[in-house]
Amino acid sequence: MIHVFKGLKNVEKYFLINILYIERRMYEEYKQVIVVRSDLKMSKGKLAVQVAHASVDAVLKAINDKEWSTWVNKWVEQGMKKIVVRVENEERLLDIYNKCVSNKLPCSIIRDAGRTELPPGTLTAVGIGPAPSDLIDMISGDLPLL
Amino acid sequence: MIHVFKGLKNVEKYFLINILYIERRMYEEYKQVIVVRSDLKMSKGKLAVQVAHASVDAVLKAINDKEWSTWVNKWVEQGMKKIVVRVENEERLLDIYNKCVSNKLPCSIIRDAGRTELPPGTLTAVGIGPAPSDLIDMISGDLPLL
Repeated sequence: MIHVFKGLKNVEKYFLINILYIERRMYEEYKQVIVVRSDLKMSKGKLAVQVAHASVDAVLKAINDKEWSTWVNKWVEQGMKKIVVRVENEERLLDIYNKCVSNKLPCSIIRDAGRTELPPGTLTAVGIGPAPSDLIDMISGDLPLL
Repeated sequence: MIHVFKGLKNVEKYFLINILYIERRMYEEYKQVIVVRSDLKMSKGKLAVQVAHASVDAVLKAINDKEWSTWVNKWVEQGMKKIVVRVENEERLLDIYNKCVSNKLPCSIIRDAGRTELPPGTLTAVGIGPAPSDLIDMISGDLPLL
């Protein structure tokens, strides 16, 4: 990228940097990542419900915030990209959730009522976003797909 | 229930009926049902994403409608009950969706972009509600759990 600046005046560099920044903002990708625990024995229906809980709850939190609601709108325009990844235990799930809170990302942690397959109060999933993909990747980018 | 009316005057019957009606409205159960096709070969991650797509999309539609948005609020207050059920093919999925539209229930049908496991344009899931449980059960009450 640096080679395009060669031979440009400072004012030209300034405008070019601004155009690149605006373009990046315009084409910024938004997504939602849902993190689930792989150490729990859940049927595929139960798992799907936990993922949907985390997804909807994070969206509802985001809708009620001024900045986050613009992220929701852009995410909907782009087709509501969702990705499901996994962590190996509750400690890692809580760690991810706390990082989201610290980084001021819309997020939600799901505690199962435990009426069916799991003990009451089991933490099952975390929903992150909708948010810019690069902000989410800083937290969950290294987690494997479910 | 009828025996409680015995010996009551008409005006007393009238008040009793109204109290029962109000009580029923106060304790009305709200839920969301997500219908998925059982004839598609989807990984559990793919399936969970389709369920979340249908769930979020139906919620977003409901939020933007005056009557439906009160249903969303009540559903959230009650803990956002979600149930995943199945149909055997696309025809049955479309049939369910059309019944929801005819019955003026918030609903959403999910068409997969087909970038990964499915052919492009595959219909995968229908989200019904949030809505009063008895209205949803009139459409999907006989469908088996996933």
